[in-house]
Amino acid sequence: MLGIGRNSKRDPSLPLRLRLGLELDSFFPRFEVSCVVESYRGEASAFLSKYGITEGDQLLLALKNGKELRGTLMPSYSNDESILVIKLENGYNVGISYKYVESVKVIERRGKGVGERTTVLATGGEVKIISTGGTIVSKIEYETGAVRPALSTEEILQFVPEAKEFGTVSAEILFSILSEEMKPTYWEKIAEAVKKAFDEGVRGVVVAHGTDTMAYTAAALSFSLRTLQGPVVLVGSQRSSDRPSSDSAINLLSSILLAKQGEFGEVVVNMHGETSDTYTLAHRGVKVRKMHTSRRDAFQSINSRPLARVWWRERKLEMIEDEVRQRGASTVLETGFDDRVFLLKYWPGLRPEVVEQIVSSGVRGIIIEGTGLGHTSKEFAPYLRKAVKEGVFVGMTSQCLFGAVNMNVYTTGRTLMEAGVTPLLDMLPEVALVKLMWVLKRASDLEEVRKLMINNLVGEINVRHTVEMYPRWDSGR
Amino acid sequence: MLGIGRNSKRDPSLPLRLRLGLELDSFFPRFEVSCVVESYRGEASAFLSKYGITEGDQLLLALKNGKELRGTLMPSYSNDESILVIKLENGYNVGISYKYVESVKVIERRGKGVGERTTVLATGGEVKIISTGGTIVSKIEYETGAVRPALSTEEILQFVPEAKEFGTVSAEILFSILSEEMKPTYWEKIAEAVKKAFDEGVRGVVVAHGTDTMAYTAAALSFSLRTLQGPVVLVGSQRSSDRPSSDSAINLLSSILLAKQGEFGEVVVNMHGETSDTYTLAHRGVKVRKMHTSRRDAFQSINSRPLARVWWRERKLEMIEDEVRQRGASTVLETGFDDRVFLLKYWPGLRPEVVEQIVSSGVRGIIIEGTGLGHTSKEFAPYLRKAVKEGVFVGMTSQCLFGAVNMNVYTTGRTLMEAGVTPLLDMLPEVALVKLMWVLKRASDLEEVRKLMINNLVGEINVRHTVEMYPRWDSGR
Repeated sequence: MLGIGRNSKRDPSLPLRLRLGLELDSFFPRFEVSCVVESYRGEASAFLSKYGITEGDQLLLALKNGKELRGTLMPSYSNDESILVIKLENGYNVGISYKYVESVKVIERRGKGVGERTTVLATGGEVKIISTGGTIVSKIEYETGAVRPALSTEEILQFVPEAKEFGTVSAEILFSILSEEMKPTYWEKIAEAVKKAFDEGVRGVVVAHGTDTMAYTAAALSFSLRTLQGPVVLVGSQRSSDRPSSDSAINLLSSILLAKQGEFGEVVVNMHGETSDTYTLAHRGVKVRKMHTSRRDAFQSINSRPLARVWWRERKLEMIEDEVRQRGASTVLETGFDDRVFLLKYWPGLRPEVVEQIVSSGVRGIIIEGTGLGHTSKEFAPYLRKAVKEGVFVGMTSQCLFGAVNMNVYTTGRTLMEAGVTPLLDMLPEVALVKLMWVLKRASDLEEVRKLMINNLVGEINVRHTVEMYPRWDSGR
Repeated sequence: MLGIGRNSKRDPSLPLRLRLGLELDSFFPRFEVSCVVESYRGEASAFLSKYGITEGDQLLLALKNGKELRGTLMPSYSNDESILVIKLENGYNVGISYKYVESVKVIERRGKGVGERTTVLATGGEVKIISTGGTIVSKIEYETGAVRPALSTEEILQFVPEAKEFGTVSAEILFSILSEEMKPTYWEKIAEAVKKAFDEGVRGVVVAHGTDTMAYTAAALSFSLRTLQGPVVLVGSQRSSDRPSSDSAINLLSSILLAKQGEFGEVVVNMHGETSDTYTLAHRGVKVRKMHTSRRDAFQSINSRPLARVWWRERKLEMIEDEVRQRGASTVLETGFDDRVFLLKYWPGLRPEVVEQIVSSGVRGIIIEGTGLGHTSKEFAPYLRKAVKEGVFVGMTSQCLFGAVNMNVYTTGRTLMEAGVTPLLDMLPEVALVKLMWVLKRASDLEEVRKLMINNLVGEINVRHTVEMYPRWDSGR
């Protein structure tokens, strides 16, 4: 919520955006990006000149309805030339027309602090940001109003001028794609770019990535970079950077901090930790899942605790998990994926002949998202047995997502195991699929595939489930 | 946890089961069911005779280690003839050898209360229990040690003698299958049996069902029985009834209560509500999912609040959701499912040609489990367009599970919609699949399929998401 008090919601003299705060965000027509480097023009510019205010100044705005608004003047990319963009203390940007402002008091002049470009190196530095696309670096498409990736990392850093206080940063645009277009061959390119960055001497790497398939990429990088000299932090944004409720700035700042300070050599996903903006959570790359289509705290650890909590405002890193992979002496890259795999989710009515069809399409491995402890109808047993005999790996995960499969409990599980199905413990279906693609490039026969699949390589299997790993439900309270 | 105090965990004089309590449950060799109608024999029987104790008596056992155990003597189906089964006040059964018992004091004699068979009618009564199989009515298989459905509803009612205090109960064994063997044709049989029960005049129906596919059946019944004279309560058990931590008794009792007292005409899933045993939660049949492979509170509402909380001990029903479907004047059955559908989960690397393969196998509809707000790679657009042109319905859901799809936000979503993909809002992928099977039997053309799919028929679409519908994570606290 905005930090401007509950009453503001009902005060009709306030502009709609301020009255309804962030909840309105998804309904409010978005800023249209006219130009990403220009800032205030026209009326707003004249208003600011009158007070001698420049971007970065900390302001106290007395509004015409008697209320006050305190925050830092940010660059505006709105087409509405009357809008001032104020960054509130809670990290959010709000847009307000200068027409609603009675008077302005400058609390502290920072001037160059924001207006000045953050220094971005081409290579090296303490942290390297590798940009692949996604909402964290997106802008609005003129014609359709839809969001499209466009801003460069340099441009995004204009939004987070604090970044330079965290350390020296270099940036590289590797791709500019929405993450639903991500492919295993791109995972290989990202892994290579990460390795190159560490070879250049950075302490940590931030990978800016669309959120849709970020967890898949996190798993792919985890298996490809089993020895790392420092943290690899995947970060994205659930709300694009032109929106007042955007999580771009907080997530990016927090990730730079984590990449520099994190005393581990693991791949993590670092995103909003809870409803408000107090911290982000760094989730182990093989134990994380996007669990909500739009919430900023969409990414959550499954069958695992997050590795760390990052207090972006306090610039403090708090480790949650003790057992982390240590920084290695060098970064060892072992990449390559065989995409001849299939993820088959079971449902009542699914016919077992589907297995034949999948096998005949040339796949080398199938991950089943079974029911409960790892089941399909028994009718699948002969079809799966035939597939395994033909050299196709068949692994079992659960569509429950939480908990582990255990195929010893019921007759069905035992029958499927006897047919050659391998239970994959508490591995997430998506992680099992990515791991299988990676394993198939390395194993010489089915027995080796099976061994590698049930071997805990980078923390993708967790046998110690504790009660707090299952989230608290009961929304009826 | 067991109600016998924390210290008991470390007391080596106690039997292993009591020392480690329920946590040990999954490791402890299970009771083997020798006979489901007999009870105490041999040594235990002699011990009980000595004290003149019969099943149902409330006892205070002084143990040899100085501790006490208070509870009700239950029938034992253990092969170990030394075991006494005591139902603790928290609802759990524990097994303890009489050898660890120093002395027994009878607190209250109930005698016939438990030993006596609960009266089970063949038809009518206030509540009808339709048994389809699953763990709630399962026993251990001799040869393998695995669990197999076997016990009749009558036999299960021996475990919950309190049932008769809730009302008159009739029971029917419809099938005896593990729920992974459930099929759309069986859904039809269950729906018919439910209709028949209401026609016989019951107030509510309990459907005992395996947990693996219970949510699918709940959705199928929801669409088939849109007008209901009373509650249809699906219930199962995550731990079989022979295990001390079994949730069979609590879930079944609570469901009988709900079926009789619930003032609504909806299909719900009623299972353990939280870690302990204080209440069960009744989830709307089209908004529920099994979210854990083994926990007793595995079933949770997604994008919705539970309808009601059932305090089984207090015999109290607490409504959580105000907007429920009212009891109708008659039960209207409209069943039938077309299983020529496919649920396709998208992942990076999935090739778009898979759409052609699915369509050529003769399906009439595809539900995509897309990423984020409802995406696949853009490469899928021409393939999906072709499928839709050939009369195949293509609906979009999200693998995030929480939140709604919104295909207007990004270019990819707009492209897919333009190709003919229908966004299915916040419908769960599994519910969308079951609904599609039902709709395909009723609609005469693709346009009608589309209309019915986005029409909120029985609460499967919820547009009012509130913050508490997303469970609380952050297991690092």
